[in-house]
Amino acid sequence: MHRLLLSSRQTFGRVSLKTLVAPPSTFLSAPSCQLTCTKVFSSDSKFPKSSSFAARHIGPSTVDIRVMVNEVGLKSIDEIVQKAIPASIRLTDELKLDPAIGEHELLSSLKEMAAENQVWRTYIGMGYYNCFVPTVIQRNVLENPGWITQYTPYQAEISQGRLESLLNFQTMICDLTAMENANASLLDEGTAAAEAMAMCYRLSLLCKDELINVVDITPDLDMHEACGILVQYPDTDGCVQTNLAQVAELAKQKKTVVCVATDLLALTLLTPPGELGADVVLGSSQRFGVPLGYGGPHAAFFAARKEFIRHMPGRMVGVTKDRHGNMAYRLALQTREQHIRRDKATSNVCTAQALLANMSAMYAVYHGPRGLQRIGQRVHNFARVLAKGAAEAGFELVNPTGLYFDTLRLRPTKPMEEIRSRAASARINLRFYDDRATIGVALDETVSEADMNDLLRVLGCKSSVAELAERLSPDEGLLASPLARQSNYLEHPVFNSYRTETAMVRFLKRLENRDLSLVHSMIPLGSCTMKLNATTELTPVSWPEFSQLHPFAPTDQAGGYRALFQQLEAQLAEITGFDAVSLQPNSGAQGEYAGLRTIMHYLDSIGQGHRKVCLIPMSAHGTNPASAHMAGMKVEPVNVTRTGSIDMRHLLDLTEKLSDKIAAIMVTYPSTYGVFDPEIREICDVVHAAGGQVYLDGANMNAQVGLCRPGDFGADVSHLNLHKTFAIPHGGGGPGMGPIGVKKHLAPFLPGHAGHDHLNHLAKLPVSAAPYGSASILPIPWAYVRMLGPDGLRRASEVAILNANYMMKRLEKYYKVEYRNEAGFCAHEFIISMNEFRKSGIQAVDVSKRLMDYGFHSPTMSWPVENSLMIEPTESESRDECDRLVDALIRIRAEIDDVVQGKLPSDDNPLKNAPHPQSMVCSSHWPHPYSRELAAFPAPFVRPENKFWPACSRIDDRYGDMHLICSCPPMSSYK
Amino acid sequence: MHRLLLSSRQTFGRVSLKTLVAPPSTFLSAPSCQLTCTKVFSSDSKFPKSSSFAARHIGPSTVDIRVMVNEVGLKSIDEIVQKAIPASIRLTDELKLDPAIGEHELLSSLKEMAAENQVWRTYIGMGYYNCFVPTVIQRNVLENPGWITQYTPYQAEISQGRLESLLNFQTMICDLTAMENANASLLDEGTAAAEAMAMCYRLSLLCKDELINVVDITPDLDMHEACGILVQYPDTDGCVQTNLAQVAELAKQKKTVVCVATDLLALTLLTPPGELGADVVLGSSQRFGVPLGYGGPHAAFFAARKEFIRHMPGRMVGVTKDRHGNMAYRLALQTREQHIRRDKATSNVCTAQALLANMSAMYAVYHGPRGLQRIGQRVHNFARVLAKGAAEAGFELVNPTGLYFDTLRLRPTKPMEEIRSRAASARINLRFYDDRATIGVALDETVSEADMNDLLRVLGCKSSVAELAERLSPDEGLLASPLARQSNYLEHPVFNSYRTETAMVRFLKRLENRDLSLVHSMIPLGSCTMKLNATTELTPVSWPEFSQLHPFAPTDQAGGYRALFQQLEAQLAEITGFDAVSLQPNSGAQGEYAGLRTIMHYLDSIGQGHRKVCLIPMSAHGTNPASAHMAGMKVEPVNVTRTGSIDMRHLLDLTEKLSDKIAAIMVTYPSTYGVFDPEIREICDVVHAAGGQVYLDGANMNAQVGLCRPGDFGADVSHLNLHKTFAIPHGGGGPGMGPIGVKKHLAPFLPGHAGHDHLNHLAKLPVSAAPYGSASILPIPWAYVRMLGPDGLRRASEVAILNANYMMKRLEKYYKVEYRNEAGFCAHEFIISMNEFRKSGIQAVDVSKRLMDYGFHSPTMSWPVENSLMIEPTESESRDECDRLVDALIRIRAEIDDVVQGKLPSDDNPLKNAPHPQSMVCSSHWPHPYSRELAAFPAPFVRPENKFWPACSRIDDRYGDMHLICSCPPMSSYK
Repeated sequence: MHRLLLSSRQTFGRVSLKTLVAPPSTFLSAPSCQLTCTKVFSSDSKFPKSSSFAARHIGPSTVDIRVMVNEVGLKSIDEIVQKAIPASIRLTDELKLDPAIGEHELLSSLKEMAAENQVWRTYIGMGYYNCFVPTVIQRNVLENPGWITQYTPYQAEISQGRLESLLNFQTMICDLTAMENANASLLDEGTAAAEAMAMCYRLSLLCKDELINVVDITPDLDMHEACGILVQYPDTDGCVQTNLAQVAELAKQKKTVVCVATDLLALTLLTPPGELGADVVLGSSQRFGVPLGYGGPHAAFFAARKEFIRHMPGRMVGVTKDRHGNMAYRLALQTREQHIRRDKATSNVCTAQALLANMSAMYAVYHGPRGLQRIGQRVHNFARVLAKGAAEAGFELVNPTGLYFDTLRLRPTKPMEEIRSRAASARINLRFYDDRATIGVALDETVSEADMNDLLRVLGCKSSVAELAERLSPDEGLLASPLARQSNYLEHPVFNSYRTETAMVRFLKRLENRDLSLVHSMIPLGSCTMKLNATTELTPVSWPEFSQLHPFAPTDQAGGYRALFQQLEAQLAEITGFDAVSLQPNSGAQGEYAGLRTIMHYLDSIGQGHRKVCLIPMSAHGTNPASAHMAGMKVEPVNVTRTGSIDMRHLLDLTEKLSDKIAAIMVTYPSTYGVFDPEIREICDVVHAAGGQVYLDGANMNAQVGLCRPGDFGADVSHLNLHKTFAIPHGGGGPGMGPIGVKKHLAPFLPGHAGHDHLNHLAKLPVSAAPYGSASILPIPWAYVRMLGPDGLRRASEVAILNANYMMKRLEKYYKVEYRNEAGFCAHEFIISMNEFRKSGIQAVDVSKRLMDYGFHSPTMSWPVENSLMIEPTESESRDECDRLVDALIRIRAEIDDVVQGKLPSDDNPLKNAPHPQSMVCSSHWPHPYSRELAAFPAPFVRPENKFWPACSRIDDRYGDMHLICSCPPMSSYK
Repeated sequence: MHRLLLSSRQTFGRVSLKTLVAPPSTFLSAPSCQLTCTKVFSSDSKFPKSSSFAARHIGPSTVDIRVMVNEVGLKSIDEIVQKAIPASIRLTDELKLDPAIGEHELLSSLKEMAAENQVWRTYIGMGYYNCFVPTVIQRNVLENPGWITQYTPYQAEISQGRLESLLNFQTMICDLTAMENANASLLDEGTAAAEAMAMCYRLSLLCKDELINVVDITPDLDMHEACGILVQYPDTDGCVQTNLAQVAELAKQKKTVVCVATDLLALTLLTPPGELGADVVLGSSQRFGVPLGYGGPHAAFFAARKEFIRHMPGRMVGVTKDRHGNMAYRLALQTREQHIRRDKATSNVCTAQALLANMSAMYAVYHGPRGLQRIGQRVHNFARVLAKGAAEAGFELVNPTGLYFDTLRLRPTKPMEEIRSRAASARINLRFYDDRATIGVALDETVSEADMNDLLRVLGCKSSVAELAERLSPDEGLLASPLARQSNYLEHPVFNSYRTETAMVRFLKRLENRDLSLVHSMIPLGSCTMKLNATTELTPVSWPEFSQLHPFAPTDQAGGYRALFQQLEAQLAEITGFDAVSLQPNSGAQGEYAGLRTIMHYLDSIGQGHRKVCLIPMSAHGTNPASAHMAGMKVEPVNVTRTGSIDMRHLLDLTEKLSDKIAAIMVTYPSTYGVFDPEIREICDVVHAAGGQVYLDGANMNAQVGLCRPGDFGADVSHLNLHKTFAIPHGGGGPGMGPIGVKKHLAPFLPGHAGHDHLNHLAKLPVSAAPYGSASILPIPWAYVRMLGPDGLRRASEVAILNANYMMKRLEKYYKVEYRNEAGFCAHEFIISMNEFRKSGIQAVDVSKRLMDYGFHSPTMSWPVENSLMIEPTESESRDECDRLVDALIRIRAEIDDVVQGKLPSDDNPLKNAPHPQSMVCSSHWPHPYSRELAAFPAPFVRPENKFWPACSRIDDRYGDMHLICSCPPMSSYK
């Protein structure tokens, strides 16, 4: 049972699923990167402007920096950097990047670049459709820092807003697909399909290291020994299969898991896969109100039957109760970095596309079931009109079943060139199949009557829409077929209550205000780098030139994007010291996977394909071993020393013992313990000497930019979390971006993309459905680099390190600080342990929850060290804000002392009862031995005017795990 | 003492101040209005879209409407309208407007219109300068419904956010001008200057009805008998007067009030007028971060010495305390509609430009004093470079003192055509003076080195900026002159604490969250029509094609605006039944003034100039008599009956008695009591028969659109509050727009604008500095009308009437409803009286404040009837929301009963203690005879997840009046 059945027509975008789950082949050459340095405006230094962007981005002022350096006990920020970073790897030159430009200059130059993208009317389909983003959602979600700057909702009590919205997403998916469970989104449809296949394989219990055997579905379908089958419904050509139920029935007999890739809008009219026997249903929710964005970011969905719930990849939101029995939401079955099951992992997915999933859910909230159905009917009827017109103009419909929803594949009788030229002169993109004999037309909700008439003219049809529409028969089309949907969907009140914009705005605002985000206070998450997401960086994401391009529009229409990609690749290569960069991976974990596959293919190419061992330190992110496992490698753990460094002796032992089996080492730098390991060069040398490659996890790149470069001190590959170091907002749990940089020898093996002009020389190894991953958010890192320039970038890293050391210095008198380097310094983050309070019952989680009462999001909790908090302030937080968090922790320390000294009972104190929501503090009933004021306003800087109220008291995780509910509960359960 | 001294060079924009304060002359012809109806898409009815905009805009669903109609005791909404509106005036036909289009279609067609506006680099100056709107302010203030949909901050406890920001504005103005008091902004610089002159006149205590004698300042300046003098510093040509101190000294001897019009950016470098003896300082704050917008909206400022504080026009924010002694802000010296001193008024200003003032204040917060100074220096230095270049190219500087800040007037030696053509080919606009012999160049913060080099090329200078800059001498320029500013400014922490974007966003969000706005709940303000401000309507305001046009750019660059104006004029004319429309007035009050002046000029033209009496019902808005007074009319009050209608007998008496003195009647319709007076036709006829004109106050137009038209039943003029009926957001107290519609005979006398191609046929009577008032927000009403179409517009009015009658019906069992028509119906608003509770001490204000605890903004309080609430739900509020407000009022009625029946003391109950802020409810100390829960969560629909907390307890107005503080208090006063 280790075959997977795939239809030969099954492509996602232009990615054949086979390339995502099957082994790669050969490659040709590397992409070229260029940097064009422009000269500095001489007058800007002579007549200075109000301020540089660096001064807007970096928190502490020059005066503050002086004070902070002093507090740390040194004389200059440079001294701190010298103490923190080994001299052996310090960058001596400035980065070769263009000097910084101002915010408005940046927007002007980006406008020029954007003008090189041409927005044609595009009917290419292939999983990507134009849509109307409701302006109320565009402005109040996508363009609102209150909705885009939150972290992943691990701290449920201060994340109820987007948890509620993500639950709506899951409910929407379950309803439309008729499945029992859905997750809170995956990266894109292609990888969702790959995840489905991987799940089938996993379930087949044949988890050997063999490669999966992918087989085309042929007419003489043989499911023998097949662990899974994947059917597209409708398929990429627009055809709606009529025998899905029979296939599922057959599969059930053979115990083959039936996966169906589908289209949400089609399901407003079409019998859902869940009613036809599907076990897993997946697809993209892009056309539900998310811009095309030249390929992303969008939210894929993944739904499955009840029995698969614990095998599903990705995150899922569930319903539970808080300590007082009130209903609340939380992440159920968490698969975060820290929860990934290391080398036993069968998926490395640890992010979602939360922001985009929320937009899609809100699109459904906005339109409601009847609105969506009307959209579906309109699109389908226009497709029927077009089919009539095409027939009239002599086209043959290429569609085995004759049933379609919105997409037609047509075989013309006229010369193809004629159609092509008429389309071009109307600035219309159609899908021109590689067979050079057929074309595809996929319609969407934005198509107007005028567009339809233009399309008919392109096809050479003489009749108008109005005329053709008159001739439509009610006995034809999907709604007249046996597959017409009978069941209702989206009946929950949330999809039927916010029809007006007034109601919608209030709903959005109510949810926004339940989430703590960067608009409230710092989010000091170790390893997650929650820095400023500047408005100017985000502005271009809304421009139609970036947001309305189809990923498979002819590349000559995307000159602006091309320039952006080339420049960003060059910027990132310079910053990391690598020779080539791939922008394709959609998350850090996907970057890891892409990087490791690149290594494997390289090794294969030099006859070292037998090397399969990946060395991974015990302190690594859980995603590291998971990615290694996904890439077909065998994980071998390396010990770390008491100070968090790699145990060199153990490393040497391993390299000796395993010698020619070693493919690579994965190492995070600075380490996950927040320290620059002084032996990093030696580690790289040792692995290289053993014939292995060095994969450097770039999660902590924010401590390095402008100060040292992975490519210089020995790394061969590295991913960059653009949503950490390079200012892409976290979106409340996605989007993320994880491009990889590589040394020259690996460049030919970077992810490619079939059929994409600029990537098809690397055509056999895509890791994402879209050629450039989440292209539309790439202006953000580009702008970040352009506006900070080499000076600002270095300064940002320096201040990130300063802020961490300053806070550490202030806190070390109150908490035990774990891990520093020999000089006593940390990098850009540090860990404080709560172990000393264990006896009195106080744990890291109590401090985490208590911080909410002080208005803060908890630092990373109990990772990478049990019962600890890892604090990463980033450079964007001011000295004031750093001080406020420190002051809060010092006050909490005093509260702990009260418990330790028995002044307060160990089960009724501000820590154990934290967080304190309004329902507690404003209650007549207050039985606690401390005051309401201490509960809710525990420091002078927590005032009514800035109080962020946790939405509920502490979440009951145990209850949630025992009563797994992952879609909207009936209204009766709301009190 | 009734002469006003003005320099002949004193123009504001292109408006000579004389035209704003002096009597008008003659006019030529009327503007032409055209409507182009496009055909309906046939396929939209066949294949319906998700929903119409009407369904997004109108609150109650069709099902709700059925239920509500039933509750009112009728069968259809049409029946309600029949009961509410006299049959004699009902419109029988549908409005002749284009059918409704969808939101995205609208944006496309508006994009096409916008493309007809060309954004050239513009150095025209004249009070309007390009500037960089900080993107963080653009997105989080201008594009954020949480900042733009609030009402004027009369309810201080739930308006502390923008009150704090407006206080910052006042402090900024005081600091930069060195004056002791500033108001919270006026409509534009031109009218601010006119207000200053009017104030001088007022202060001269010669308040007779004589016309003001405006005199040019001549070299042999004679201040004898002059009540005021106005000096521009710098003036429109860029010249900085060096003798301001001497002029002020001389004026002081003659008791002449010295007014100075100035430029905020210049004052970063220039000795402020306050230090040179000015009594009043005014100007525009536009260049502080507010887009040009083809003339508006922008905030003018008005500052004066301490002794003038009670004579200043407009609103002012002051510091006071709340009941618990905590510092709080409020509107001091309120000059709202209701507080305008009726016929004794000397100014009719009752709105500010709050949103724009806030943007300007935030611009100063963002840049801080050093940033502003750097901007000032850069602009000035570029001007110096340009002057050098111009001299090199043979230009003569036309500047009597030789001192300038940013603007040069130059006399070329080369032919003017050469310059003109070089400028045009570089897409650069300069100021070409009417003398055809000189040009003006005004620089601003957006000017880059490249722009400068282009400008030098246009002037024919061979040297580059870099070369010229090298030759600048430190001994020249403003900073080397005796007028170089020595004093500091903006030293308050608020201007020195939010330098980073992170800090700025948090500051903005903190203030936003203290203000109750439409994103929280309904704002049921009688006569203020707080309806949905839809995102799609607001979107175009941010487009550069609308926002970056200079009001005096050549009109052939503003084709898009021209089309917009023509279409909007035609739409409004059709809706009101008038023949011509002027878009110039910037507020309702200004519309009144413009309308009355139009009447006066018309009467003058037919030899009836002796008619000066304006009849105004006792129930009128206070602005009516104030405007009449400002327009030089004599107010004669008309009685109203017990039911709120005009007392016909009294009217007949008056017309008989005053006969040929009657110029006009001003009547609000439906009446300010919320009733459609059945005798409106007769009223109009009576006045017409007496030879007077009918001015219809359009404040209540929201009950009429599509149902009846003022132009049909007898009105000659009417203003329209675009910020009420036509969806322009209130902005927290401005911008407003008050265009007027007139009958054909009045059309030639509409406001014109000298020098503006399309308005100079009406060239002698501007009422605003900009030809089309606040042009950049006119896409909002245009979009509103286009998206609702004739059906939707009528439906909106019907539902506005339904909502009011539904709420009235539900409430009449609990409160005494004042005024209905004979059938027992109200229009779109109704009044409930609190008089019956007087004995137990409960007043309307207590109910108002108690509503805050329920999450609502109070209805209009004690106007037009003492001790009452006037409720206007508008059509945008859903049945649910209407029910919630009704339920809140019913619960409050029960609370009142507890006091009436003695269950709760009359001085310690939820009403008298309202509102209840966090500091009360979360306090350990709770001495009240009712629970915390009743205080803060008094209804099931008030839950922690949507609780809006008032920022303070009840404001102490008396304390504030006694201790007038109108700029930021020192930090020591913040606890």
